Amino acid sequence: MATIAPTTRLRKSPFYDSVMADGATSMMPYNQMMLPGGFGDPESEYRRLTEGVSMWDVACERQIQLQGPDAARLAQILCPRDLSKNVVGQGRYVALCNHRGTIINDPVLLKVADDCYWFSIADSDIGLWASSIAAERGLDVEVSEPDVSPLAVQGPKAADVVASIFGEWVRDLKYFAFADADLDGIALKVARSGWSKQGGFEFYLMDGSRGADLWNIVKEAGRPWGIGPGCPNPSERIENGLLSWGGDTDVHTNPFEVRLDRFVDLDVPDDVIGIHALRRIALEGPTRHQLGVVLDGDLPQPSHDQWYDIVVHGTKVGDMTNGTWSFKLERNIGFGLVSVNCNVGDHVQVHKSGNVIQGQLSPIPFTTA
Amino acid sequence: MATIAPTTRLRKSPFYDSVMADGATSMMPYNQMMLPGGFGDPESEYRRLTEGVSMWDVACERQIQLQGPDAARLAQILCPRDLSKNVVGQGRYVALCNHRGTIINDPVLLKVADDCYWFSIADSDIGLWASSIAAERGLDVEVSEPDVSPLAVQGPKAADVVASIFGEWVRDLKYFAFADADLDGIALKVARSGWSKQGGFEFYLMDGSRGADLWNIVKEAGRPWGIGPGCPNPSERIENGLLSWGGDTDVHTNPFEVRLDRFVDLDVPDDVIGIHALRRIALEGPTRHQLGVVLDGDLPQPSHDQWYDIVVHGTKVGDMTNGTWSFKLERNIGFGLVSVNCNVGDHVQVHKSGNVIQGQLSPIPFTTA
Repeated sequence: MATIAPTTRLRKSPFYDSVMADGATSMMPYNQMMLPGGFGDPESEYRRLTEGVSMWDVACERQIQLQGPDAARLAQILCPRDLSKNVVGQGRYVALCNHRGTIINDPVLLKVADDCYWFSIADSDIGLWASSIAAERGLDVEVSEPDVSPLAVQGPKAADVVASIFGEWVRDLKYFAFADADLDGIALKVARSGWSKQGGFEFYLMDGSRGADLWNIVKEAGRPWGIGPGCPNPSERIENGLLSWGGDTDVHTNPFEVRLDRFVDLDVPDDVIGIHALRRIALEGPTRHQLGVVLDGDLPQPSHDQWYDIVVHGTKVGDMTNGTWSFKLERNIGFGLVSVNCNVGDHVQVHKSGNVIQGQLSPIPFTTA
Repeated sequence: MATIAPTTRLRKSPFYDSVMADGATSMMPYNQMMLPGGFGDPESEYRRLTEGVSMWDVACERQIQLQGPDAARLAQILCPRDLSKNVVGQGRYVALCNHRGTIINDPVLLKVADDCYWFSIADSDIGLWASSIAAERGLDVEVSEPDVSPLAVQGPKAADVVASIFGEWVRDLKYFAFADADLDGIALKVARSGWSKQGGFEFYLMDGSRGADLWNIVKEAGRPWGIGPGCPNPSERIENGLLSWGGDTDVHTNPFEVRLDRFVDLDVPDDVIGIHALRRIALEGPTRHQLGVVLDGDLPQPSHDQWYDIVVHGTKVGDMTNGTWSFKLERNIGFGLVSVNCNVGDHVQVHKSGNVIQGQLSPIPFTTA
């Protein structure tokens, strides 16, 4: 694989020098920033996340801030989920859709103040989208990307590490709740969140010049629990059914196809973008759904860098959107975005780089046999 | 530098296997696709482009298509440039702006038919932007990204190569003009365009499955002229003053700051996005402008992967946005986005990775002393 060519179109994370010094071997672009893709030892990284504690540079999870008198109104217009009971200090997972009901991002929305919201975004330009809608609807709101860069601490021992840094109060934070904190003069927000199912926290660093300081504090504090560097883990996230927007979705995917039904409220106001389309899709039913795929064979396949056809009796029924070696199942597993005529238990063939691999559709999250 | 981690969020170009086989050593993300960043021998690549002929995978230069009864109307709404005299078969360089007059992309707009336009875009999500505006204004137009992938042939011998493939008629194409063509059953458009000042063509491949076929035809046809692989060349493009949107611009840059005045028509209709802001900025005058920077020293500096402060008498006056070794000037040169109080000839200091480098502001394009 080629290296990443130098370009000023790709921004460095405040933690970039730290993760390089700690041995990042690959990177991937995400919101015009580089997200570490691994540190050279996939199994140790998986074990650290699922049995201990891992620290991640997820600065690329940028914040799109809505601020001003119409911030709450714009947030609701952008989200097909009822935000009327949202409170300051609580985040919510939302499926942002375009006017056709296609998902264009799946951020966590943080209500920072009555007149200030942050979308903690996946990999698409929600700043461009939100500023377009704000201007076209004549709303009194400022859309910006503030200097905020999350660092995640994930794993069953994450709470111990984070409590040792900030105090026992962090254990009482509910999922997606967040609170202001100060660490040796570094302003941040501490949130109970992160892109794994192992539990953990994200520190929203609010001063990019302090990235190395924060990294080092966490690294030092986590030492007794064996903390080490990591990144969003393909094996752990697929085993546990976490969606990668843009990786597991295409330009036609609606929330109902990818198990996000419960994050859509069809009774939001009529001016919410995409709600008319979503009501129609809900009525008619989606044509595809997301199921697990378990492949035959007990040797790791290379991870996906493209979608592969899923075929039944010679006919394409969908795509295997991502796949990885599961350390828990000791099988290659992945996500299928397949026709609703396909069901759990169906035998399928995956056409991967000229090879045909036998497999079977399964529930998500995956269950050990 | 780290390698690129496998991810399905980054698409492969139809020419990907060909450029890897031909020795691409680095890649950079561009519109969720990989753009080659070099083939291991910068000087040969520069000489090939400026003295011979070079072929480039620029599939990442995606096309955003507007199709339908309101396509022309939407194109004009998005462009602060008068399109009323546009004809089918002719492209135009345009500076797309947001409602504040900030440049959000600088594509070539191709009028494909009376009801069909393509924006051949730089690295930002104009599909998302255009579809938002279309829906918000209730226009009858379909916004999509068709299966179209440009391959560029650039250099003083490009016309000879392209004429040998398609016939002598290609020599009569005006700059940014394009025409349909067919090559062994491969549908494409041949355009007189490309991101260099050496002259050349771009083939808009209209069937992604034929990438390797097209690559091989061009490679074979160009053999008598010594064609070889290349990519947008930092040295050539900076010497000749070509702007890299997103690399040389930030979230505040307007067209007047970066020498694009002549592509803005202030008398376009009032419903054109950003026109009110642009009229105000034109009246008040911009606060920054783009000048060249020539650094002292005759050894190549590393290319930029971030902006560096430009300082005069201890005060920051702007940023050096990109810099590279110039094979023509045998100096390190680059672009400065600096206060309008700075002028050609001013002595400046560039603070690059802890070093202070002396330099002087210069005209763009650069002139040999």
